[in-house]
Amino acid sequence: MIQVAILGFGTVGSGVAEVLEMNQKEIARGAGEALCLKYILDTRVFPDSPFRDRLIHDFSVVESDPEVKIVAECIGGVGVAYDFVTRCLKAGKHVVTSNKEMVAKYGDVLLKIAQEQGVNFLFEASVGGGIPILRPLMSCLTANRIEEICGILNGTTNYILTKMIDDGEEFDTVLKQAQEMGYAERDPSADVDGHDACRKICILADLVYGVHVDPDQVATVGIRNISVETVAFADIAKMRIKLLARVFPREDGKLAVFVAPHFVPAKNQLAHVDDVFNAVQVRGNAVGETLFYGRGAGKLPTASAVVGDMIDAAVHLDKRRDLSWSSAQENYLADVRDIPLVWFVNVSDGEDAVRAALPEARILGRDSDSCGFLTGPMALSELEKCGLHRIEQYPVLSD
Amino acid sequence: MIQVAILGFGTVGSGVAEVLEMNQKEIARGAGEALCLKYILDTRVFPDSPFRDRLIHDFSVVESDPEVKIVAECIGGVGVAYDFVTRCLKAGKHVVTSNKEMVAKYGDVLLKIAQEQGVNFLFEASVGGGIPILRPLMSCLTANRIEEICGILNGTTNYILTKMIDDGEEFDTVLKQAQEMGYAERDPSADVDGHDACRKICILADLVYGVHVDPDQVATVGIRNISVETVAFADIAKMRIKLLARVFPREDGKLAVFVAPHFVPAKNQLAHVDDVFNAVQVRGNAVGETLFYGRGAGKLPTASAVVGDMIDAAVHLDKRRDLSWSSAQENYLADVRDIPLVWFVNVSDGEDAVRAALPEARILGRDSDSCGFLTGPMALSELEKCGLHRIEQYPVLSD
Repeated sequence: MIQVAILGFGTVGSGVAEVLEMNQKEIARGAGEALCLKYILDTRVFPDSPFRDRLIHDFSVVESDPEVKIVAECIGGVGVAYDFVTRCLKAGKHVVTSNKEMVAKYGDVLLKIAQEQGVNFLFEASVGGGIPILRPLMSCLTANRIEEICGILNGTTNYILTKMIDDGEEFDTVLKQAQEMGYAERDPSADVDGHDACRKICILADLVYGVHVDPDQVATVGIRNISVETVAFADIAKMRIKLLARVFPREDGKLAVFVAPHFVPAKNQLAHVDDVFNAVQVRGNAVGETLFYGRGAGKLPTASAVVGDMIDAAVHLDKRRDLSWSSAQENYLADVRDIPLVWFVNVSDGEDAVRAALPEARILGRDSDSCGFLTGPMALSELEKCGLHRIEQYPVLSD
Repeated sequence: MIQVAILGFGTVGSGVAEVLEMNQKEIARGAGEALCLKYILDTRVFPDSPFRDRLIHDFSVVESDPEVKIVAECIGGVGVAYDFVTRCLKAGKHVVTSNKEMVAKYGDVLLKIAQEQGVNFLFEASVGGGIPILRPLMSCLTANRIEEICGILNGTTNYILTKMIDDGEEFDTVLKQAQEMGYAERDPSADVDGHDACRKICILADLVYGVHVDPDQVATVGIRNISVETVAFADIAKMRIKLLARVFPREDGKLAVFVAPHFVPAKNQLAHVDDVFNAVQVRGNAVGETLFYGRGAGKLPTASAVVGDMIDAAVHLDKRRDLSWSSAQENYLADVRDIPLVWFVNVSDGEDAVRAALPEARILGRDSDSCGFLTGPMALSELEKCGLHRIEQYPVLSD
């Protein structure tokens, strides 16, 4: 029997407790022995929780108990969570987490401490919620040079976009509905401005390409400015608009990492990933295109991944998984403004002006004061010089 | 540096050699050291192959060379391949394979030998080609009770069905085209009669539910008898016809395992898996629905999974993965004729006869001598007693 602890009894933490209880048999089969939940740390009291006998308020109890071998951090953020995780690792405990903000910001540091201590630091739940993606990348697709990772990594924005597409509603209207239904936070910025997706693509980039990518340096465009006109233009082009987070190496060795709404052709699997679902497309030079799909958030799906990591830590109590990436490097990221992409553009110019400026443009539609079209492959820096009055512009994912 | 060998220099074997060469750097990073291809065993000669210096014809060279730590079996079938794999394991070598026929038939036996010898026997490539599926199931979704696995596991039949749907062609016509294009074998039975998909779902069932499922005992219906009328009926019902292989536990503890063409609602991700692509849907009681998509066959995709397993074996040279399942048990499989399913049925009776026999039926269409409809949930054994003259019948996948 292996003693474990949960830090933070919010949505994810209570899901982890629930899964540990509900699937005891399966977990014991996977881990080789039972996982026994000894402590749950939270500042609050939960007098009605069936787990109330495990609740404690003093972190040092967990930190100083040598019986606790595996700790699931479910507090979130980079304040107390980072402090506690550091201390748990230094106390020789294996740590698993769903905290993408912490992993994106301090993953290299925490993996280094874990390496020094000979313990595991695992974070499958930090990207794609319940979807197995980090481990398949690091232990199944290892025979590949990864040519691109492209994902729908935020459920809230995907839900909003799906509603905008299916119901033809404006962003503000759908956001309000999503907030009322609990799918969006009262302050929706982390989701709708793309920061959450950005952290997740940084973690994928870190793992696969081996160098820390600072989320603050990644070009990130959210979904706030997408108009119903643009959604309609996508439909005309037989595409759907999706917030994609992408990473791919360029020929000069630099890494392109960016988050932006994209026009996705209906033929691409990502076009059919709707509602709160997430999906990650991985292209390897041997395997070709693969896709991993599932629930990217939510109590039990996220707990599924956290407990999966706890089981893996239990199996590898004496042999740590060799995960690491090096610290951020100067000039490692490509300037995304220089990458040739196909663009959808909506301009407040007439069709004639568009044809004059960009003869290759494929006009999707126009009215008296605007024109929507697709360009050929061109850099954003070129597009900006075309002299048209651009209202919106989004990259188009190739087939 | 770890010395490895390939048995069989056909499509998969030559792909493995190619990937080992092409992605040396990535492979060394994943394995912690370089994998060096020492031998390729084949009865044939390949005077023009860049790997000709590694070719040997005598298996005992591999078997008796203690330097060779990892062997990739790419011969196929259950004759010489089974003999060689057994002998490699007994010689203390780790073995990886893409051979679904051998794993489906003798997986329990081979895993037992591997366990006795303390070596790995890995077979990610045997299901879903390049798609990571076995390892995610066994090391990411371990915190779940797996409620169902449902997959498009054969690329040839999926290609044929896609063409039948998109072009409205008859099965025989499309099969002939597929044979001409090399997508189908001259003797297409293993694919079109569902045996290949059957072997793969058996391997998934073995791993997840821990007991050997004999492919010969699995109810298996192929795609030979699907008519263009049925394809059209599916379209009317906003569904697409797909050959699905399914496994789920029933309430009485028995396992339902079957392969059959299904009507798949357009809302289900599986409906959008086209051409030679495969996909496996896994539903867990914590994670909900997940899907794994990619190329289920082909030289490099399959080699990607084989070499991925070689890397995993290299990482675990001294610690074997604890995979096993017990031998077949009496009365372990449910009788699929007793499982309540929604059915599409095409009968040579009039609409009135259908309404009289099955009042809940949803009529999709009729002409003078046939009527196509969907039933409510009912067992096949009940359907057979309804007194209608059934021409074709296929289960409908629930939303």
